[in-house]
Amino acid sequence: MFPTYDVIVVGAGHAGCEAAVAAANMGSKVMLATMNMNTIAQMSCNPAMGGVAKGQIVREIDALCGYSGIVTDHTMVQFRMLNRSKGPAMWSPRAQSDRMQFAARWRSMLEANPNIDFWQEMIVGLVVKDGIVKGVRTGIGLEIPARSVVLTNGTFLNGVIHIGEKQFGGGRAGERAATGITEQLVELGFESGRMKTGTPPRIDGRSLDWDAMEVQPGDEVPGKFSYTDTPTPKRQLPCHIAYTSQEVHDILRTGFDRSPMFNGRIRGLGPRYCPSIEDKIDRFADRDRHQLFVEPEGWDTCEIYVNGFSSSLPEDVQYKALRQVRGFENMKMFRPGYAIEYDFFPPTQLKISLETHLVKNLFFAGQINGTTGYEEAGSQGLIAGINAHLAVQEEEPFVVRRSEGYIGVLIDDLVNKGTKEPYRMFTSRAEYRILLRQDNADLRLTPLAQKLGMAGSDERMQRVEAKNDAAEHIEKVLRDLSVEPGQVNGLLEEKGSSPINQKVKLHGILLRPQISMEDLRTAIPQVAELLSGYEQEFVDLAETNMKYEGYIRREQEMVDKMNRLEEVHLHEDFNYQQLASLSKEAREKLSRMKPRTIGQASRISGVSPADISVLLVHVGR
Amino acid sequence: MFPTYDVIVVGAGHAGCEAAVAAANMGSKVMLATMNMNTIAQMSCNPAMGGVAKGQIVREIDALCGYSGIVTDHTMVQFRMLNRSKGPAMWSPRAQSDRMQFAARWRSMLEANPNIDFWQEMIVGLVVKDGIVKGVRTGIGLEIPARSVVLTNGTFLNGVIHIGEKQFGGGRAGERAATGITEQLVELGFESGRMKTGTPPRIDGRSLDWDAMEVQPGDEVPGKFSYTDTPTPKRQLPCHIAYTSQEVHDILRTGFDRSPMFNGRIRGLGPRYCPSIEDKIDRFADRDRHQLFVEPEGWDTCEIYVNGFSSSLPEDVQYKALRQVRGFENMKMFRPGYAIEYDFFPPTQLKISLETHLVKNLFFAGQINGTTGYEEAGSQGLIAGINAHLAVQEEEPFVVRRSEGYIGVLIDDLVNKGTKEPYRMFTSRAEYRILLRQDNADLRLTPLAQKLGMAGSDERMQRVEAKNDAAEHIEKVLRDLSVEPGQVNGLLEEKGSSPINQKVKLHGILLRPQISMEDLRTAIPQVAELLSGYEQEFVDLAETNMKYEGYIRREQEMVDKMNRLEEVHLHEDFNYQQLASLSKEAREKLSRMKPRTIGQASRISGVSPADISVLLVHVGR
Repeated sequence: MFPTYDVIVVGAGHAGCEAAVAAANMGSKVMLATMNMNTIAQMSCNPAMGGVAKGQIVREIDALCGYSGIVTDHTMVQFRMLNRSKGPAMWSPRAQSDRMQFAARWRSMLEANPNIDFWQEMIVGLVVKDGIVKGVRTGIGLEIPARSVVLTNGTFLNGVIHIGEKQFGGGRAGERAATGITEQLVELGFESGRMKTGTPPRIDGRSLDWDAMEVQPGDEVPGKFSYTDTPTPKRQLPCHIAYTSQEVHDILRTGFDRSPMFNGRIRGLGPRYCPSIEDKIDRFADRDRHQLFVEPEGWDTCEIYVNGFSSSLPEDVQYKALRQVRGFENMKMFRPGYAIEYDFFPPTQLKISLETHLVKNLFFAGQINGTTGYEEAGSQGLIAGINAHLAVQEEEPFVVRRSEGYIGVLIDDLVNKGTKEPYRMFTSRAEYRILLRQDNADLRLTPLAQKLGMAGSDERMQRVEAKNDAAEHIEKVLRDLSVEPGQVNGLLEEKGSSPINQKVKLHGILLRPQISMEDLRTAIPQVAELLSGYEQEFVDLAETNMKYEGYIRREQEMVDKMNRLEEVHLHEDFNYQQLASLSKEAREKLSRMKPRTIGQASRISGVSPADISVLLVHVGR
Repeated sequence: MFPTYDVIVVGAGHAGCEAAVAAANMGSKVMLATMNMNTIAQMSCNPAMGGVAKGQIVREIDALCGYSGIVTDHTMVQFRMLNRSKGPAMWSPRAQSDRMQFAARWRSMLEANPNIDFWQEMIVGLVVKDGIVKGVRTGIGLEIPARSVVLTNGTFLNGVIHIGEKQFGGGRAGERAATGITEQLVELGFESGRMKTGTPPRIDGRSLDWDAMEVQPGDEVPGKFSYTDTPTPKRQLPCHIAYTSQEVHDILRTGFDRSPMFNGRIRGLGPRYCPSIEDKIDRFADRDRHQLFVEPEGWDTCEIYVNGFSSSLPEDVQYKALRQVRGFENMKMFRPGYAIEYDFFPPTQLKISLETHLVKNLFFAGQINGTTGYEEAGSQGLIAGINAHLAVQEEEPFVVRRSEGYIGVLIDDLVNKGTKEPYRMFTSRAEYRILLRQDNADLRLTPLAQKLGMAGSDERMQRVEAKNDAAEHIEKVLRDLSVEPGQVNGLLEEKGSSPINQKVKLHGILLRPQISMEDLRTAIPQVAELLSGYEQEFVDLAETNMKYEGYIRREQEMVDKMNRLEEVHLHEDFNYQQLASLSKEAREKLSRMKPRTIGQASRISGVSPADISVLLVHVGR
């Protein structure tokens, strides 16, 4: 019934959808297998994309021709640029989407791709021969043959949902768990573990007293995620902010003895930085309140997501506690929050390409690798999809370096360090933050997409070049153009910056922390004229390049130094055991994890700088 | 956590949604409980509403202030008035909807109703005390209290899906079955049975050769279902028609030995008039081809529903056979067709109100009563919702008579005759077909909705009165107005009708079978002027009233005669055993089924005209 696909993607969440699109847009024939075609690209938890560090990842996915940004732009109900008061490295876009529209848009974009076929059924096993994956097996016993497989099972593998003392099988509220794959992988020699995550109650917005909460509107001039010509929203929905209180905490504590988190029933580790409300009041017992973001689920629904109130306490405790929150006195619930435990596979079992060490052409992406978050999942899916395609073509894998993107940081961290608890991205995980900005993901990554031959990357590159050219031209003009004191002293005075008393280049003025490009545009007609020819995004890049020139240069120097190690390749079959001068731990880990470069080897925990020196000597450097 | 609801509706399919709306619009506080709020109002099978007899039911639902017609009008991709070449009794509207939009529109209309709350969880049992239902129990062990409960479990109760020799639990593809309720009801004394239904494969429209099929466009001037001011579609999608062949049948036969229908694995009876393709080629072995309707699932999806190819043959047989169909040579499947077996409760256990005999204030609606079809389900839901509300108010139940609507025929048939196989509505089931037309459902039923105090029925009644007044006025004018031979003989000649040679009333001309109101409008300026003040729908009613006057009068006389029996009420506690002159069978059946009227008693199988005479004598007629 089936041709042999180049790539089968198992699961159609954020990771699976991006994997399918990436492989398909490189030319692979792709089969996307999902338990239910009506739940393609469901946002299982928060109806939002982006946020600190995560927003950068969405921009990077977009720059690499993934669809998460495009889908979000088309379906957003609110956009906010977080951290706008901080430096540009910290600016992080975040958008809430209409949950149903988000899923519908993803599905229609997938269907629009002639290289993607669909199969609706549970996948219960892999076909593996001689250590190479050859396809998948379905619940009704079909074999779908393929040259590579990407597993993106999310929370479905042996998923167990916990609410208070009750537990039942399920991959998501109202959906069944998936079985079979873990058992087979363990038989094949994989190590598996359990993780847990949670989700807050969904409640009835009609029962809330909105006036008793703070309004949190979207940005007045909303931005977007995609570098393509997606729309910005014409109208937005507000979120609201509410607060817990000591009374709320007291009620929650009455459920602690029945909490599966505290009584040991849940063994999997949860996401430290996305804690449940009971975790928060337990760990931060001195805090007398916590913020709750009361978020709409879409344009046409009264369903509300209570961000910050993830819980697996008994439903009656969740209910009573929430009703103590100001504005929630008459709150009605649609369903309680819950915790879910699921199987993951420690990602140190993966190559940097996201291919497994044990089974050739088998890739893992998303929560199966121990991560949390749509953005983390989507970006892994994208990379796994690209590399599944490349593996089938017998080409070298594609790697985003730590200096090129948060995606690089994410995957490098996962495969080299592994993770004990759900891994979430933070800006602090990146060593080159001023380079990895949300505004320049296209400059960093679209050239790589073009080199890969991703469909659509040529048009994107034209824009990247125009953006770069514009920034360079603007910088050049400002470096050349001088102004007289009379032209700028008014502005300088107004901004509290010392006046000049002779001609000065505009570039010098701009470097003053009090002065922005916008100030110059207002004060200097030549600047206004210069900038009038360019999109704001291009102007912003020029400004950032100039204002942060020093920081950028320093980071770039670090990158260049590090890159020397990244360019020293290590062969997969390298026999580390023969290198007696390596520490025992380094020999073991290097043999197991088979780093592709000395740079990667240097980031494996247990591999010391001394070990790296030994390797460098050995490979002749 | 919960207030005591007036009505809890279990299940949010067509029956459940209509039940919730009906009770809520009469003023009840309603809880709609569903396993998954993302699948509210899923069209599990065909993405279409209406068709022969079924289209009339949708119009009746609308006339009774239900929402199925409104939702369909807003989401349709194609409209066709079936049987337009036949008499007006046979005209049957049918529309295909965008599957996702249909569900989304229903959900937002439900949410817009302040009397409807939601709970997302599986309902696993009822709370019953002293023979009265008091609420429901949820999967996590909650009790939701209520004064009445409507069960609309569809195919979910112990659902088992069959594909060839494989079988697995499930209420719908990709969704789990519901357990607990059947077992409890059986313990309470209910008789349960198994039924089966089936669904065809879903396939990839991108893989079809559309040019090899016949196009079936929608009506040039599309109609609609609702009597309210819903829109008619501005554009439509075409369906296509394909055909099976001997080759297709031969391939299908190779799977017969593995068919769960033929090898006895499925014991439940399937819908005779909606047979699987294997049933069709088995039962009609002389037919060398069957028609397949190739129907789009929506505006933005390539998913296709192959109407006419329902099957539970092994998936490889379905696949190979479909690929033999012209236009399907490169067909790709999203999922195979399947059969599903599920529990139902023989509806003779119900009162005419759809309340169960055994448990007070417990109502059943939809497939749980052994019916098939969205329209049959929705209409039962509507009546059950109304009667649940009335039961809580301790008011008399609401009954649509057989002479008032197909809904009356449906429920009267179910509770009096029961059904061994999935019951589907046909025009032939109704004895008063000329009265039960799609165009006059509002005249028949909206006055009843108004008497019930349904929200919105007052505005609807104004329109009904205007429509009636218009028809009467038009009729009166045509009865009064004479025309000269010169005014109409041209028309009569053109239409092949004999000319007149003296003045004749227009009414007489219209009664000629060759002449339509439209002809008169074209030929006679006074008629054109008269009609110009009225909507086409009003004019149509006038025409039908006049042209079918004789038939209408004869049916009305039969109704009046029968109604005398319908007005002779029988008390629920009537002791039939004491009436020795009743046959033994009649005594048993009447004791068990407790008919509300002599009319109802007369339709119980096993109750003879002699028995009815005995009853009439006894009650004093």
